[in-house]
Amino acid sequence: MITGKYKKGKLMKTIAVLGATGSIGTQTLEVARANKDIRIAALAAGRNIRLLEEQIREFLPRVAAVWEEADAQKLRTAVRDLDVKIVSGMEGLLEICTLPEVETVVTAIVGMIGIRPTIAAIQAGKDIALANKETLVTAGHIIMPLAEQCGVKILPVDSEHSAIFQSLNGENPRQIHKLLITASGGPFRGRKREQLADVRVEDALKHPNWSMGQKITIDSATLVNKGLEVMEARWLFGMDLDRIQVVVQPQSVIHSMVEFVDGAIIAQLGTPDMKLPIQYALYYPERRFLAGDRLDFARLSQITFEEPDTETFLGLPLAYRAARAGGSMPTVFNAANERAVSKFLSRKIGFTDIYEIITECMEAHKVRQNPSVEEILETEQETYEMIESRW
Amino acid sequence: MITGKYKKGKLMKTIAVLGATGSIGTQTLEVARANKDIRIAALAAGRNIRLLEEQIREFLPRVAAVWEEADAQKLRTAVRDLDVKIVSGMEGLLEICTLPEVETVVTAIVGMIGIRPTIAAIQAGKDIALANKETLVTAGHIIMPLAEQCGVKILPVDSEHSAIFQSLNGENPRQIHKLLITASGGPFRGRKREQLADVRVEDALKHPNWSMGQKITIDSATLVNKGLEVMEARWLFGMDLDRIQVVVQPQSVIHSMVEFVDGAIIAQLGTPDMKLPIQYALYYPERRFLAGDRLDFARLSQITFEEPDTETFLGLPLAYRAARAGGSMPTVFNAANERAVSKFLSRKIGFTDIYEIITECMEAHKVRQNPSVEEILETEQETYEMIESRW
Repeated sequence: MITGKYKKGKLMKTIAVLGATGSIGTQTLEVARANKDIRIAALAAGRNIRLLEEQIREFLPRVAAVWEEADAQKLRTAVRDLDVKIVSGMEGLLEICTLPEVETVVTAIVGMIGIRPTIAAIQAGKDIALANKETLVTAGHIIMPLAEQCGVKILPVDSEHSAIFQSLNGENPRQIHKLLITASGGPFRGRKREQLADVRVEDALKHPNWSMGQKITIDSATLVNKGLEVMEARWLFGMDLDRIQVVVQPQSVIHSMVEFVDGAIIAQLGTPDMKLPIQYALYYPERRFLAGDRLDFARLSQITFEEPDTETFLGLPLAYRAARAGGSMPTVFNAANERAVSKFLSRKIGFTDIYEIITECMEAHKVRQNPSVEEILETEQETYEMIESRW
Repeated sequence: MITGKYKKGKLMKTIAVLGATGSIGTQTLEVARANKDIRIAALAAGRNIRLLEEQIREFLPRVAAVWEEADAQKLRTAVRDLDVKIVSGMEGLLEICTLPEVETVVTAIVGMIGIRPTIAAIQAGKDIALANKETLVTAGHIIMPLAEQCGVKILPVDSEHSAIFQSLNGENPRQIHKLLITASGGPFRGRKREQLADVRVEDALKHPNWSMGQKITIDSATLVNKGLEVMEARWLFGMDLDRIQVVVQPQSVIHSMVEFVDGAIIAQLGTPDMKLPIQYALYYPERRFLAGDRLDFARLSQITFEEPDTETFLGLPLAYRAARAGGSMPTVFNAANERAVSKFLSRKIGFTDIYEIITECMEAHKVRQNPSVEEILETEQETYEMIESRW
């Protein structure tokens, strides 16, 4: 263990990374590579055990988790020369989130599978560097009061929420007038509804500014992602939906803004590099040097603004509708979208069918108010089943 | 006296306004009008005793000052029905700045005349809402250490410095990489040097975005104003000149920015309304509702950026040169500009002659390092004399 040995009396920052082999996970490890006082105590991945093995060899965590026990067994054999415990399944995730030495859990895992580990981590007093969207979208009403009760910080890793968090630094949240979440508008910005019907998967995967995983790239094209961000912001910053506005800013230079009661707007700008919000979440409130491109205003030349086209990109109005219905409805929105995107990616449905599926699932759903985690997972299951039976 | 009587146990904020009849002064009183817990204990003006009398009748200060004793006598007669003491000259300004009940002095007075009252106010433990540019430009090396020693705050009222101050809120100043001061570029942006020779006073007074006094409007057209702001920022935020960059942003929507070591940029945006920085300085760190237009991103459509044209607009490179020479040189820069602008406004010289006069005065000057207030005022006088003898 390196803990405590770091020079000049600096303390090590000990973290666990859930979703270590994904986009946010690997970038978190890049941040750790550049900051020698970050100690990786645990790594969890889904099925990419080849990359996970490399990560284990580099970062020497005490525990690593994979989803399937069969994968865990393979990994145990592969790393038998190392002093690392390999665990699996939900039990494994829960073990990782509650390791005594871990201070911050980076929840970069995708899907509702992230909710239980996040709750366990909060209950164990860990700060959360939150990159799992589903946690707040579906269970914000459980997570935020629990975090307050346990005295832990929920630190956003998403670029937009981090921008709001950075813009709020030191300000009294009661003096906020509204949050302005920026959106690139995605690869189909400017098209009308009828021009979306026959878009191809390849086109939808071409995000103008950010390099991300496939699912989130499609969500950016539908604006569902922006809708999910509105839902998250609502919980993260305790803000009424009416005071969260989406502004299209196609160059993705302004990462989001806060308007205060006096009319002042504070914004965070930067290059599109997820390592910045990741590092900010890990060291908050400290800022550290981060290698990489800097915004060059001479080269930048302009930033433009538009209103989102909510007639064409239904992801956003559907999200507001789900959020206003509240209770279990955001879970339906999220689960329906997840399955619909999966079907679109495997070319079983068209692009605008994603909206159809979300709409139909939401219309068929009877809202349960204030759902428990079990009810949230049941709602997810019911939504999946409805989609399987109909499409 | 209304002090202490304000409802709900809220304390009154008691202020003195120097330069009450000018642009910043009258806007400060507008802020006071909208915030009933601001008590105006003292007002000082130059020669506009008609407006000052109106202000006295509205705000009922305990003391008011004018520059000439003859004006003071007229004013005493005019307001003999009120319980207000009328004082005059530098002595009057110093009395106003050290009134026991005053917490914050708004230094909206123009010229180097503001230095002594500001020092007196700091020594008397008053916070300074700083709108007098000359104070930091010429005496920053005296003011900033004194303010620290006396434990008082120097709160910028200038739009750009307030934007930086707002962007820094809660951040560690040691984590700043650079300051980005935005500039509109003035009414002649885009012109080349030879196109400036015969510009008229009327054209130079047409600022594209801000409504301000005449002198500062010409300073915006020459970019001298931006140079003065760079010099002020240097002292106010303790920043090397090399880490202060001017970015032309013609729409004046971004009021200035801070780039941190991690590459994150925090910016303050808003409509061009000086009441915002004034109110922010008076209530810092609290923000209060402020009536007025809000930025509307749908209508805004775009923000553009350019590098400043330092070949044409010599105000900026001359300011950096003066600041690098240090000591008494910024005083020469400022005094030469002041007189040159005055001659331009009275149509005695052409627009680009302003640059000639500043350059010649700077070249003729032998820098005194670490000048005292007396030496600063002597330098000013010498510069005035040189200009009178040559032009």
